[in-house]
Amino acid sequence: MRHDGREVNQLRKVEMIKDFIIHPEGSVLITVGNTKVICNASIEDRVPPFMRGEGKGWITAEYSMLPRATEQRTIRESSKGKITGRTMEIQRLIGRALRAVVDLKALGEKTIWVDCDVIQADGGTRTASITGAFVAMTIALGKLIDQGKLKTLPITDYLAAVSVGVDKQHGEILDLNYKEDSSAQVDMNVIMTSQGNLVEVQGTGEESTFTRSQLNELLDLAEEGVQSLIEIQKIALGNLAHIIDKNIKTG
Amino acid sequence: MRHDGREVNQLRKVEMIKDFIIHPEGSVLITVGNTKVICNASIEDRVPPFMRGEGKGWITAEYSMLPRATEQRTIRESSKGKITGRTMEIQRLIGRALRAVVDLKALGEKTIWVDCDVIQADGGTRTASITGAFVAMTIALGKLIDQGKLKTLPITDYLAAVSVGVDKQHGEILDLNYKEDSSAQVDMNVIMTSQGNLVEVQGTGEESTFTRSQLNELLDLAEEGVQSLIEIQKIALGNLAHIIDKNIKTG
Amino acid sequence: MRHDGREVNQLRKVEMIKDFIIHPEGSVLITVGNTKVICNASIEDRVPPFMRGEGKGWITAEYSMLPRATEQRTIRESSKGKITGRTMEIQRLIGRALRAVVDLKALGEKTIWVDCDVIQADGGTRTASITGAFVAMTIALGKLIDQGKLKTLPITDYLAAVSVGVDKQHGEILDLNYKEDSSAQVDMNVIMTSQGNLVEVQGTGEESTFTRSQLNELLDLAEEGVQSLIEIQKIALGNLAHIIDKNIKTG
Amino acid sequence: MRHDGREVNQLRKVEMIKDFIIHPEGSVLITVGNTKVICNASIEDRVPPFMRGEGKGWITAEYSMLPRATEQRTIRESSKGKITGRTMEIQRLIGRALRAVVDLKALGEKTIWVDCDVIQADGGTRTASITGAFVAMTIALGKLIDQGKLKTLPITDYLAAVSVGVDKQHGEILDLNYKEDSSAQVDMNVIMTSQGNLVEVQGTGEESTFTRSQLNELLDLAEEGVQSLIEIQKIALGNLAHIIDKNIKTG
Amino acid sequence: MRHDGREVNQLRKVEMIKDFIIHPEGSVLITVGNTKVICNASIEDRVPPFMRGEGKGWITAEYSMLPRATEQRTIRESSKGKITGRTMEIQRLIGRALRAVVDLKALGEKTIWVDCDVIQADGGTRTASITGAFVAMTIALGKLIDQGKLKTLPITDYLAAVSVGVDKQHGEILDLNYKEDSSAQVDMNVIMTSQGNLVEVQGTGEESTFTRSQLNELLDLAEEGVQSLIEIQKIALGNLAHIIDKNIKTG
Amino acid sequence: MRHDGREVNQLRKVEMIKDFIIHPEGSVLITVGNTKVICNASIEDRVPPFMRGEGKGWITAEYSMLPRATEQRTIRESSKGKITGRTMEIQRLIGRALRAVVDLKALGEKTIWVDCDVIQADGGTRTASITGAFVAMTIALGKLIDQGKLKTLPITDYLAAVSVGVDKQHGEILDLNYKEDSSAQVDMNVIMTSQGNLVEVQGTGEESTFTRSQLNELLDLAEEGVQSLIEIQKIALGNLAHIIDKNIKTG
Repeated sequence: MRHDGREVNQLRKVEMIKDFIIHPEGSVLITVGNTKVICNASIEDRVPPFMRGEGKGWITAEYSMLPRATEQRTIRESSKGKITGRTMEIQRLIGRALRAVVDLKALGEKTIWVDCDVIQADGGTRTASITGAFVAMTIALGKLIDQGKLKTLPITDYLAAVSVGVDKQHGEILDLNYKEDSSAQVDMNVIMTSQGNLVEVQGTGEESTFTRSQLNELLDLAEEGVQSLIEIQKIALGNLAHIIDKNIKTG
Repeated sequence: MRHDGREVNQLRKVEMIKDFIIHPEGSVLITVGNTKVICNASIEDRVPPFMRGEGKGWITAEYSMLPRATEQRTIRESSKGKITGRTMEIQRLIGRALRAVVDLKALGEKTIWVDCDVIQADGGTRTASITGAFVAMTIALGKLIDQGKLKTLPITDYLAAVSVGVDKQHGEILDLNYKEDSSAQVDMNVIMTSQGNLVEVQGTGEESTFTRSQLNELLDLAEEGVQSLIEIQKIALGNLAHIIDKNIKTG
Repeated sequence: MRHDGREVNQLRKVEMIKDFIIHPEGSVLITVGNTKVICNASIEDRVPPFMRGEGKGWITAEYSMLPRATEQRTIRESSKGKITGRTMEIQRLIGRALRAVVDLKALGEKTIWVDCDVIQADGGTRTASITGAFVAMTIALGKLIDQGKLKTLPITDYLAAVSVGVDKQHGEILDLNYKEDSSAQVDMNVIMTSQGNLVEVQGTGEESTFTRSQLNELLDLAEEGVQSLIEIQKIALGNLAHIIDKNIKTG
Repeated sequence: MRHDGREVNQLRKVEMIKDFIIHPEGSVLITVGNTKVICNASIEDRVPPFMRGEGKGWITAEYSMLPRATEQRTIRESSKGKITGRTMEIQRLIGRALRAVVDLKALGEKTIWVDCDVIQADGGTRTASITGAFVAMTIALGKLIDQGKLKTLPITDYLAAVSVGVDKQHGEILDLNYKEDSSAQVDMNVIMTSQGNLVEVQGTGEESTFTRSQLNELLDLAEEGVQSLIEIQKIALGNLAHIIDKNIKTG
Repeated sequence: MRHDGREVNQLRKVEMIKDFIIHPEGSVLITVGNTKVICNASIEDRVPPFMRGEGKGWITAEYSMLPRATEQRTIRESSKGKITGRTMEIQRLIGRALRAVVDLKALGEKTIWVDCDVIQADGGTRTASITGAFVAMTIALGKLIDQGKLKTLPITDYLAAVSVGVDKQHGEILDLNYKEDSSAQVDMNVIMTSQGNLVEVQGTGEESTFTRSQLNELLDLAEEGVQSLIEIQKIALGNLAHIIDKNIKTG
Repeated sequence: MRHDGREVNQLRKVEMIKDFIIHPEGSVLITVGNTKVICNASIEDRVPPFMRGEGKGWITAEYSMLPRATEQRTIRESSKGKITGRTMEIQRLIGRALRAVVDLKALGEKTIWVDCDVIQADGGTRTASITGAFVAMTIALGKLIDQGKLKTLPITDYLAAVSVGVDKQHGEILDLNYKEDSSAQVDMNVIMTSQGNLVEVQGTGEESTFTRSQLNELLDLAEEGVQSLIEIQKIALGNLAHIIDKNIKTG
């Protein structure tokens, strides 16, 4: 049993509150244990200059943390006047992951902006952001269908992300909280679809290394976690889930 | 009757959720109509370099809006690499206002950081920030007493803020929402204590001017609004309100 | 008697030198006691992108201090790479104030840039800037009439600004110099027209509060000061003053 | 056969020129096909402030490209005034990878700065940087031993990196050049030790996904490539290789 | 005769107003034709970190132009967030030139900050800045003697600067105004002492070249101009000039 | 004999490797003693906005040093977020010098970007950059002729640069290395053409002055050095040298 009473393969409690903020086209507050992220999706009717005229859409993400999302207050990036490497890495990851399950041609020349703002952090903020952002983005795209601006939902599969890691005491574990993450020997973020396909795997030994057999065990754990998260996404998405299910079947 | 059904001297619905975020020493989610601000207070055991050795404390505020707090997505200040003039003006105002009701000598060489993050905006974000920040700061100071780090609550009076303005159709009105604010001829923010003392008055004619008699009517309205807000603060503060009440009596 | 021999309701000596710099369309060196500000107005034949096509003009201000305008040398904002909150607040204030007495429709799609550069500071730099900027701007607009680019002077009233405050020893006082400003309990900047209308009121308790009756006494003092400043503006403006007088009468 | 005549599991031609630059403690020019990276290692006799007093060393990396390392001239990051997300990601990756095979306690309170400057780019610049940086760092540490500043070489194993990917035409391929990288469906960077342990795995579907069996085939290819690269490192390192070999044996 | 009626070897009218600004230790307004520069010298009782403990002083200069010093308004460097190359070049030049005639050891561990702010520009702003800055600096050092903080004036010679150039119509000319400077084929700034020694020579062909014999004629012209400027400096310096004269004699 | 065994009028060993980098239109690695600079020239088919429609070309240069080009590691300008004054001065100088020997009208509306990246520094990096950049630029222009995009080589003369200086021990010396440069009393950079015309002269007394006769001796030395450098350029340029020779003859 882990320090918070969980099994090694057990997710923390996950909740998604839809329409948390009224202005965005899609808005979700995702809660994973004590980690809370507001995911807002906005639709803009044009693409960045380098993509104009190609008839394809674009998805871009921004990620930020409130100063007191963390135990010690962190300085705002706007005060420092620049974005940290960590933030850049995460927002590039979120955007890339979402683009893997969207048919950008079917989207047409539109940009989806996804803002993931962590209001409370306890580990796993980037994976929670991706899992929540997928739902916020899908809701926003659903509105485009309602408004007659899109004919079909250009989403090819569900997408969720989870962290796995190697812990000195418990070995391979699923969904690390901050305390576990700080002391893990190996830390891996896995982004997958409902069909079990990998979108991104980022595994890192923290001043340490790992074997290929450990990698395989971690991927097994992650796959379990992702499937559970997708079940929760389906409930949040309601009718939109049926359309995705159909999209998956028809390939 | 105003476009949302309110009387000219009627506040929007106000709510305060304490301990909204778990990490900060004091945390409040304040809701004023559709405006929602997370106010977090952090205590640091030192003061900025220019104040060291004076035996006095300091209070500083930061203010920010999520990109989709507004109807149109706004660019993050961290992406732009600099803070706008509007943000700077507001965070200087919040800090200055709070310092007016804190006995900085009694606080000792500590800094209170107040973070006001607007997650949803519909007018009055700076006044909601001040009203919520006062409660978050008081809760944080209360914890210092519990921990034996402070002997008394160094707060001399309640502090709340409200906007008033002159509307073409309804004349002087209290607590403007975004729509009213956009078309107001005069816009004024008033920060007051429970004793009816002014801490800050900022009245602006928007490509327009106003008379001294209008100023007086606006101040009357604001005073009403501030007293109502302080009643709501008292409920949120519970026992801490009794200490403030005693502080006011003993001067 | 105040430390520099003035009565509580007495302005410092005020002078305006027109055409101080040869290049700008309007240029004034305003001297208020030891405070000296070069106010230059420039006309540009277009408006910022967000206003194009509306047929209205725009007025924007920039404010700066030379490093040795102050007793202690201050670091240049260009060296720091960013503008301080104080500077931003002041330049927003100057621009807003000037716009209140200009008929932006009559101005047409032009931008007036007003640069206020403090070469010597002794308190009241923002109010001196506004009082001088009004004259520089009016001279620049006068040239547009001479050049046949404008038919009428689009100025609806005179505009001047003054500081008032509450001093421990002398109570309410007019036109604070740096020494008085540093120790004042209440500090207020008042911007008014010749008709006694308020354009902006910014009153601040410095770690202190003030009553509504104090506010009223301060406004009385400010009104006196503003009327004296407008008399000096009239002399500087010469014939242009007659046009403004006529504009006021015809409303 | 691939467009440049290589087999799917064949590396490009790899060369390492030691002491390419005379000033750094360790310097290597690594050439991988048309990709050329100058890797310089510098030793500083202190650690960053957040690590002082812990008795441990630190390794940090910086990565940059000359404007004409690429086919189209790219703007310098110093001209833009900020580092791109891609650069940050890469330099964080290089530093993290190197730290995995260095015994930071044995290093003591020293910082190793590794500068990887790409002078000519044709794909695989980050993996070439890591492979070359390992040699530059080891040479620099060897000098510390010669100078009597270190007793043993604090390196626990060899470290090399290679890219693998999935190509539409040829399936899984090793060591992608720029042309192959641009059109790959899956792109993966693998960092491994001579013992076959993983240090970092970063696999990304480019608007696409991949299966776990593809992942396994890619890792097989990468392992082959890494072993070949380590053989080349051994030759470049000469006597220092014997010390590393001994370190591996004694664990 | 040149377009403003001057002979080829004639300076524009030069004036220096001492104590133009009251706060700095030394302050001069220098006027050269229509070019006007406020030169302020400040003394700080320490040197930059890299010089501490060497027992030597330092002199550093900053240069700036008001936006409407020029015919077309220029954007403030503080708004752009960075200093242009031209400004950097000029402020480095001013500091270097002044250091050539100051005995930095005799100055002791003090920094002289020289601020040159161009309020009106018509060519030759950098040379006017140097000529005026020398006087402002000398006055400031004189005050240190009066205050007993320095025993002798650590100035080894006078220093003045002037521009010379090659004009299509008039050949070699002295002290170019803006119009002449814009069309000159060769532009040269010469900084000299009263003893005829060179401190800095910067000659540039503007999309053109020049011969060594032209260089010699330009230097002859410059020497004449510098001697005239030094006569004007002597008058401005009064008694301090006698001390410099004595310093020159005693070498 | 100087500390490295050279005569006072002797250059260090100079080499130029053409086509050092494969992507740029022109690329040269210039080696002057231990100073090594990669000079890359890129051609862009348009000019900066301020020059459009004038039918003339433009040449602009950027200069940078790798962190370990120097004995002590220097911080990257991209990390600092701004370019130093020294860098700006040098890149302005390189661009200006090259423009003096190019017929910008004959070039037409194209921009030549010259990147000078110092990979190893031992004094004279700016003069080596100019000497190498001239060759890289000429090669790039030669390619435009080969591609039929230019009819003639728009180069009016050879261009090379060298440093000279006054040394305490050896008097006037040619081509200073870092050690000599650090202790020189006078430091001068001279840029000349093969016809002996001056393009730029920048002579500086380092906390010192120099006489006109010293200036003349330094120019004599520089002329010798420049002629030798041009001989080396001719060899590197091969056939292109013949075209330049013809251009010089036909004026």
